[in-house]
Amino acid sequence: MTDTKLKIVVWNEGVHEARNEPATIGEMYPEGIHGAIAAGLRGFYPDSEITTATLADPEHGLSEEVLAQTDVLLWWGHIAHEEVSDEVVERVQRHVLGGMGLVVLHSGHFAKIFTRLLGTTCSLKWRNEGERELVWTVKPSHPIAAGIESPIVIPQQEMYGELFDIPEPDDLIFISSFSGGEVFRSGVTFSRGKGRIFYFSPGDQEYPVYHQAQIQKVIANGVGWVAQPGVFREAPEVSNPARGWFEAR
Amino acid sequence: MTDTKLKIVVWNEGVHEARNEPATIGEMYPEGIHGAIAAGLRGFYPDSEITTATLADPEHGLSEEVLAQTDVLLWWGHIAHEEVSDEVVERVQRHVLGGMGLVVLHSGHFAKIFTRLLGTTCSLKWRNEGERELVWTVKPSHPIAAGIESPIVIPQQEMYGELFDIPEPDDLIFISSFSGGEVFRSGVTFSRGKGRIFYFSPGDQEYPVYHQAQIQKVIANGVGWVAQPGVFREAPEVSNPARGWFEAR
Amino acid sequence: MTDTKLKIVVWNEGVHEARNEPATIGEMYPEGIHGAIAAGLRGFYPDSEITTATLADPEHGLSEEVLAQTDVLLWWGHIAHEEVSDEVVERVQRHVLGGMGLVVLHSGHFAKIFTRLLGTTCSLKWRNEGERELVWTVKPSHPIAAGIESPIVIPQQEMYGELFDIPEPDDLIFISSFSGGEVFRSGVTFSRGKGRIFYFSPGDQEYPVYHQAQIQKVIANGVGWVAQPGVFREAPEVSNPARGWFEAR
Amino acid sequence: MTDTKLKIVVWNEGVHEARNEPATIGEMYPEGIHGAIAAGLRGFYPDSEITTATLADPEHGLSEEVLAQTDVLLWWGHIAHEEVSDEVVERVQRHVLGGMGLVVLHSGHFAKIFTRLLGTTCSLKWRNEGERELVWTVKPSHPIAAGIESPIVIPQQEMYGELFDIPEPDDLIFISSFSGGEVFRSGVTFSRGKGRIFYFSPGDQEYPVYHQAQIQKVIANGVGWVAQPGVFREAPEVSNPARGWFEAR
Repeated sequence: MTDTKLKIVVWNEGVHEARNEPATIGEMYPEGIHGAIAAGLRGFYPDSEITTATLADPEHGLSEEVLAQTDVLLWWGHIAHEEVSDEVVERVQRHVLGGMGLVVLHSGHFAKIFTRLLGTTCSLKWRNEGERELVWTVKPSHPIAAGIESPIVIPQQEMYGELFDIPEPDDLIFISSFSGGEVFRSGVTFSRGKGRIFYFSPGDQEYPVYHQAQIQKVIANGVGWVAQPGVFREAPEVSNPARGWFEAR
Repeated sequence: MTDTKLKIVVWNEGVHEARNEPATIGEMYPEGIHGAIAAGLRGFYPDSEITTATLADPEHGLSEEVLAQTDVLLWWGHIAHEEVSDEVVERVQRHVLGGMGLVVLHSGHFAKIFTRLLGTTCSLKWRNEGERELVWTVKPSHPIAAGIESPIVIPQQEMYGELFDIPEPDDLIFISSFSGGEVFRSGVTFSRGKGRIFYFSPGDQEYPVYHQAQIQKVIANGVGWVAQPGVFREAPEVSNPARGWFEAR
Repeated sequence: MTDTKLKIVVWNEGVHEARNEPATIGEMYPEGIHGAIAAGLRGFYPDSEITTATLADPEHGLSEEVLAQTDVLLWWGHIAHEEVSDEVVERVQRHVLGGMGLVVLHSGHFAKIFTRLLGTTCSLKWRNEGERELVWTVKPSHPIAAGIESPIVIPQQEMYGELFDIPEPDDLIFISSFSGGEVFRSGVTFSRGKGRIFYFSPGDQEYPVYHQAQIQKVIANGVGWVAQPGVFREAPEVSNPARGWFEAR
Repeated sequence: MTDTKLKIVVWNEGVHEARNEPATIGEMYPEGIHGAIAAGLRGFYPDSEITTATLADPEHGLSEEVLAQTDVLLWWGHIAHEEVSDEVVERVQRHVLGGMGLVVLHSGHFAKIFTRLLGTTCSLKWRNEGERELVWTVKPSHPIAAGIESPIVIPQQEMYGELFDIPEPDDLIFISSFSGGEVFRSGVTFSRGKGRIFYFSPGDQEYPVYHQAQIQKVIANGVGWVAQPGVFREAPEVSNPARGWFEAR
């Protein structure tokens, strides 16, 4: 628990919830997946402003005004990636390059904002049979690993397996294994422009993963790590300075 | 000089040449910038098939048939990035993710294919005053640095300076300094999907940089390093394998 | 300025000061180089316990008791690296692997603790002619770069040039250029075991670099970044767990 | 199969073989572990000179004369790391920094040469219960992954698990999982000085892993990748060049 004051927006497409698919989702996540993630964060950031936004909101709830004041955006999407407007995606990209933190969760690996920032397909293997996932820490010195037990045991989870088609991450923090034998780089960071990105794969619409205390702690650590509350929000720009321009300062 | 047999395509927008801007370009690069780069490569890959293509060619000379047979694509562009069709850019990206090598040169940092693969603005500082550039090797163990003297001295060159807004490269091989004091990560590699990318900043339409033997050698080394002639050309794809699928092989 | 409470030890061999070599050192750094560094840090960490230690102290001031309570150790050495006892070096290494932060400054690149943690020669080019150094930020998203202007202008400084024989750093934050044209990776991070290491090259016994506000800020940022005050101080150890050991927790 | 001509030395402590421990080793590896590794390499490098050396040889078979002519050294050790003389270890380190390739196998993670080059404890979890190991490719663009199926299935193998206390590798190529659920970064590269290092964990004195064709291919790929046959064998050295020294060349 910290006294850091952040503005955090938890974004969820919200389509599984609206369609009540799977039928268990209402009971598992009565406030939606975004609601559960936000609730988890409130325990770690009691003084922060934590809101949610969904695909159905005007501009998906991600207007210029909202993003300009957001320190960290969390992203959950699955079956409606294509419905996210390109204009909003470009806006989010610009803010990330300008220093807004981004945490992408689980099936968000195929979100437009993620593939656009990474430049790869972000494809992977998957299998939904409720396998046990073990999340092992491989970079214990990273702030996101602080206080995390290794492995985190997730009793049932969708399998995500390599090859995960992402660029070489800046930091590889967690590697998962699944009952079926597959492995996955489940916690990775990237920097793009002035911004920081954390991808974390655990979490799904069918399993109560976001209620696990250790998963909540990883996400909270990730939020803390990507946040740069004081950063001047402007993506790097081309410039044509005169020779010796720095001497005049 | 090697006996490696590669299919190499040197792409140049070819607009400076068509407009005869600057007026010196015809004398400096009578076969165009692409022609000079191709000529340099022929000395290192005498058994390879080295062709050129430009913006004005049908499909910019980069049809599916051409790319499918290309081991390495070199890219030079400057004032016509926006005229490159999105369809061709997506095709090139798909081939890079599938294993085609890509070498991006100088002002190609703003090419659509480069920013799309990297996800950042790729912006930088620049100043065209004919400053001396020194290209220092910082990763001597890398194949691209083999046989390269450190520093390479380029008597006159456009200045490119940090911040160069790129993701953290896989390998940082060269760092340049300029007379005015700026520095630049001038030789960097990235992997995306199954493909390898090398960016090298020296080279310009106003200076005879591509005639320097050591610059030609770096580019030849880069071509050799990004090439994967036997690779199965297919970008990574999502799949949903049955549990234990690998036991059946 | 933060209210973080850290235990910080600034170590300096203290030999230049003891010998009064160069003759200007007493006037430039009346409390020694370590005193100047510590004074700079006090402005950023007013609530922290900041002490100094030197080669002449018993156990070089780095007993097991001292290290066990130290969150961050800063290291400055130059002409007496060989006089540092191997026992102390091994002790420091063990604490770094266990999570103690380490900041190595300038000529500390040849310190036993640095070459031992990195495994390379850590050799470089040098020239002491009072050249201007420009320190350029190349990873603006890193906490150590927060609030740092790019470039920092150091009017006079010893030149350190590539090839700097270090392993590929985790983060490359700063690159310097010098009047003579050389470049240097002047701000780099490494992780070793559970510990974090920051190397920063500016600073010398002949130039008043440690009095520059921006240099002090970089060092303070570095201290903040390597510090892990709550970490369980134990280097990773080999273990032979029973199958399924994690289920019993 | 290539026509590359390399000088390759396969080093094995040879103590398991001498003691006939385990009792199966003579049947499994009649020419010793080194003999099996060398035999595997001969299929890929028919024109190369492939020799073996052991702890019992004078200077462990690694005299200055031998190393000076060696392009690639492979290292297997397990129960006699402490018996390797420090003088030989320093000699090998100097040659690696000068450009000799090094491939470290399995229990060589605790070899003096490995911990000295990496600076960490190189500790890990282990359990010897003949678990199935799956070796997954996570960097398909790397030359060491060329032609390797993912996963390689090793029916029975000693478990090696995270945390593997190594520095962040330059390239992470393979990640393994084991029946018990542990994961391990089983194929990683490092560069140190001018040299390249590849660590690959599969292989043991109790299991016939070095007879598997795909394991042999990975090792052969690793040998090809670390080799720099033409490199000038000298570790980076400190120097004090005059200003503008590069202009005189």
